[in-house]
Amino acid sequence: MTKPILYGFFRSSSSWRVRLALAYKNVDYEYRSISLFKKEERSAEFEKVNPSKKVPAYILPDGKVLTQSMAIVGYLEDLYPDKNPLLPKDPYERALVREIVYEIVCDIHPIQNPALVAEMFPDNPKKCNDWAHTHIARGLKALETKLEETGMDSKGAKYCVGNKLTMADLVLVPQCYNGKEVFAVNLSEYPIIESIYKHLMSLPEFKTTVPDKQPDYEEK
Amino acid sequence: MTKPILYGFFRSSSSWRVRLALAYKNVDYEYRSISLFKKEERSAEFEKVNPSKKVPAYILPDGKVLTQSMAIVGYLEDLYPDKNPLLPKDPYERALVREIVYEIVCDIHPIQNPALVAEMFPDNPKKCNDWAHTHIARGLKALETKLEETGMDSKGAKYCVGNKLTMADLVLVPQCYNGKEVFAVNLSEYPIIESIYKHLMSLPEFKTTVPDKQPDYEEK
Repeated sequence: MTKPILYGFFRSSSSWRVRLALAYKNVDYEYRSISLFKKEERSAEFEKVNPSKKVPAYILPDGKVLTQSMAIVGYLEDLYPDKNPLLPKDPYERALVREIVYEIVCDIHPIQNPALVAEMFPDNPKKCNDWAHTHIARGLKALETKLEETGMDSKGAKYCVGNKLTMADLVLVPQCYNGKEVFAVNLSEYPIIESIYKHLMSLPEFKTTVPDKQPDYEEK
Repeated sequence: MTKPILYGFFRSSSSWRVRLALAYKNVDYEYRSISLFKKEERSAEFEKVNPSKKVPAYILPDGKVLTQSMAIVGYLEDLYPDKNPLLPKDPYERALVREIVYEIVCDIHPIQNPALVAEMFPDNPKKCNDWAHTHIARGLKALETKLEETGMDSKGAKYCVGNKLTMADLVLVPQCYNGKEVFAVNLSEYPIIESIYKHLMSLPEFKTTVPDKQPDYEEK
C-alpha cells in the first residue's frame, strides 16, 4: 500500500507538530525534506505541491494534498480518534486546548517566522533577532498567565490542559524549543510552561521527533 | 438565565467570526465593545479578562472566559453540532475547511494586524499600509490557487468547501471585507474568492453582523 508523504524540514516548528501527531497516531509515512535554509519551499516544483510555498504538506495515498500543520493534525485526529486522542471530550476543555493552539499558531509563530521577519527588516539580522525574541517572550508571558488562570501550578505541571497529552502540547513544544535554541528565549521566566516543556521533552515521541534527530538535520 | 458575553469590536475581523457563529447557532448574548481605536484592549481592566489583550473574549454564563475567535467558534460547534453545522462530516472535507481557516487566521490575518504592523514600521503609515496590502494580496492569491485546485470554478462559487456554509466562510468574509474596505485590496483579482464573498455577503447572517451595522460602529 502507498504510504502518505510528509514534506517537511527538521527546523520547521509546524513540521514538528505533524511529526508528533504521526508518531502518536502510529502512522507510517515517507519523509521528504524541503530545505528552508536553501529556500527549496519557493521552488517551482514545490509550489505545485503547495501554492502557499510552505511546509508541511501531507500527501494522502490517493494523491490528495493537505497543507497547514494543524489541519493535518486535525485530519489525523478525525481518522484515528481513539488512538491516543489529542482532544479531550469535554467542550470547555476542548476549547481551552484550541485556545492555546491558536494563541501559539496565530499570535506567536507567524510573527516570528524567520522569512517574514527578514522581509520586515532586510539586511538587519540583529533587529530580526530582537523582534523574534520580543514576540516569542510576549506570547509566552500571556500564555503563562492563561495557564495560571486555569488553576495550574508550576510544580509538576505535565500537560497544557488536564492530565493528558493534547494538540496544545504538540504546538507548545516546537515553539518553546525553537524559541530557546534559535532565539535564546529563557524558559525559566515561564515556570508552568517550563515544567510542561521539560516533561514533554522526556517522552519518547518528542525525543524521536526533535529537530536534531531528523535525517535532514544540519547546523546552519 | 445569564447570557454569555462577547467582548468585541466592530472593526475586528476575529470578533466578526464569532458574531457570525453566534448568529448561525442562534445564541443570544450580551455585546460589550472594546474600542481598538482607543486601545481599550490594552487597559488594565480588560487585561484581567484576556491577558493577551485581544478581542474577542467570550464569557460563559458560569463566568469562565474563552479567548481566540476560532476556539470560541469551535466551542459553539461542539455545543450545538446539529444547529447549522460549520464542519462537513467527511474527514478530507473537514481538513480542507480547516486548511482554509488556518491559511487565513495564521498566514494572512496576524501579519496584517494594524497594531503589529505599526510596531514594525513606527510613524510610517504609508509603509504600514503597503505591507498589509502586499500580505493580504499574497495570501489571497495562494488561497485562490488552492480553491482552483479543489476543482472550484469562479462561475457561481458560493462556499469555500462543498455547497454548504463552513467555518472557512466565517473566516474568509471578514478577511476580504477588511482587505477591501481598509486596505483597498481588489477582490476581482481573485475571481473564485470574489464569487464566494459576494454570495455570502447576500446572506442575512452576514448582513446583520457586518462591521458598519454594529452598535459600536464609528468612522475612523
